[in-house]
Amino acid sequence: MVESCRSCPSCTTGFENYCPGMILIYNSVHPKDGTMTYGGYSDMIVVDQDFVVHIPESLPLDKAAPLLCAGITVYAPMKYHGLNTPGKHLGVVGLGGLGHVAVKFGKAFGLKVTVISSNPNKEKEAIQRLGADAFLVSSNAEQMKVAMCSMDGIIDTVSATHSIPPLLALLKPNGKMILVGAPEKPLEVPAFALIFGGKTLVGSPIGGIKDTQEMIDFAGKHNVTADIELISADYVNKAMERLAKADVKYRFVIDIAKTLKSDI
Amino acid sequence: MVESCRSCPSCTTGFENYCPGMILIYNSVHPKDGTMTYGGYSDMIVVDQDFVVHIPESLPLDKAAPLLCAGITVYAPMKYHGLNTPGKHLGVVGLGGLGHVAVKFGKAFGLKVTVISSNPNKEKEAIQRLGADAFLVSSNAEQMKVAMCSMDGIIDTVSATHSIPPLLALLKPNGKMILVGAPEKPLEVPAFALIFGGKTLVGSPIGGIKDTQEMIDFAGKHNVTADIELISADYVNKAMERLAKADVKYRFVIDIAKTLKSDI
Repeated sequence: MVESCRSCPSCTTGFENYCPGMILIYNSVHPKDGTMTYGGYSDMIVVDQDFVVHIPESLPLDKAAPLLCAGITVYAPMKYHGLNTPGKHLGVVGLGGLGHVAVKFGKAFGLKVTVISSNPNKEKEAIQRLGADAFLVSSNAEQMKVAMCSMDGIIDTVSATHSIPPLLALLKPNGKMILVGAPEKPLEVPAFALIFGGKTLVGSPIGGIKDTQEMIDFAGKHNVTADIELISADYVNKAMERLAKADVKYRFVIDIAKTLKSDI
Repeated sequence: MVESCRSCPSCTTGFENYCPGMILIYNSVHPKDGTMTYGGYSDMIVVDQDFVVHIPESLPLDKAAPLLCAGITVYAPMKYHGLNTPGKHLGVVGLGGLGHVAVKFGKAFGLKVTVISSNPNKEKEAIQRLGADAFLVSSNAEQMKVAMCSMDGIIDTVSATHSIPPLLALLKPNGKMILVGAPEKPLEVPAFALIFGGKTLVGSPIGGIKDTQEMIDFAGKHNVTADIELISADYVNKAMERLAKADVKYRFVIDIAKTLKSDI
């Protein structure tokens, strides 16, 4: 996000991410001059100072870059839905670009973090490398049953079609499931799965600018970074192919400064 | 609800309605002695004093009776999701037993209340008799479009299958839609309809005992009652037939004291 209207109720309350006039950093058209934004494929971009975030000195730029999307996307709803107080139990569904950062923020907040994945091979990664406290295989009915009604909140990062009721069943009464991954097909949500236990299903897109600065400052203080693979600009097409196969841990970052040849 | 375990985290925080050991006033079996509860079809019932609610003197018993279900079902989520502060805009989907009481509580809280119904014939009833501020026909695309992004919250009381995205579109950013009606088939909820605008879909079942007393005291103070048709016990089968055709405004109440012949 590089601009918003500045005057709507969302903008004036710190939720520029809900502004109908929001301009994204890529694939958006600026209404004033019709220029396109190209995000990480630009060799330079001019942005209003109010939409620039200061990266703390302690963070390497490459590992900090994805936090401005994946980081704020998980941080903001954790903050607004009370999933940032020590001792709470957070479930993280899916261990990819968003999920691995959610685990790191969860641990930095002092939460108990359980990763829920369809892939049993991710257990070692989740627990030993990322520091999650527990791991559930979503297809393992026995594991899922034991964990029922145990979580204060869940962040669902999965954008493939998947079953929602078994995840809602993991929540305690009044528990909240936050959607940050968006499957193409509508979710199938039985009303009773929300009504019994007063459970919440809530979506969240990135975050406001003030929250983004807060997130990156918090990341600097707690040494939260994204796990990345740094690539040169000429590797982009290959990276896209690998991305389609989920063959990256967990984000590609393009080293524009060193490798993008400017036409200017 | 006539009993709960008294010791689980839900019971000890005033949410007996989420207790796994909750005993309902009808069709429940008491674990201690195996007796069934028959609710409004009983000529007497023994209930622990902690589950008895005091009806304010100002309320007629017949018109107050449905508040102990329909009233608390809409009051509790309005309270917990911030839809009880003057000036907020509430949508009420469906104008039946739950919906008409939601309109009355909404007006008593000082809200702007808009009724959304598939039945255009209910407009006069909603506005002139129940005091709603506005009325939308859910199948009228033009009306629904004009009302987009205008509501702080929605209470959805409809238990027939219906489309959720057009209702979510009525919510402002950070708006909340509360499900109290439960269609048999799972709701179809596109993730993006929740993610853009950070919208909430949350369920709610009745309420805790403390909240039920608070609700009925509030109703007494603001003269909120259910619209009922008082019937005698021998009319029950006919009432069930009419209920199946939604031919009641809005709740049948059986006058047990005067008309149920006890076998004892």
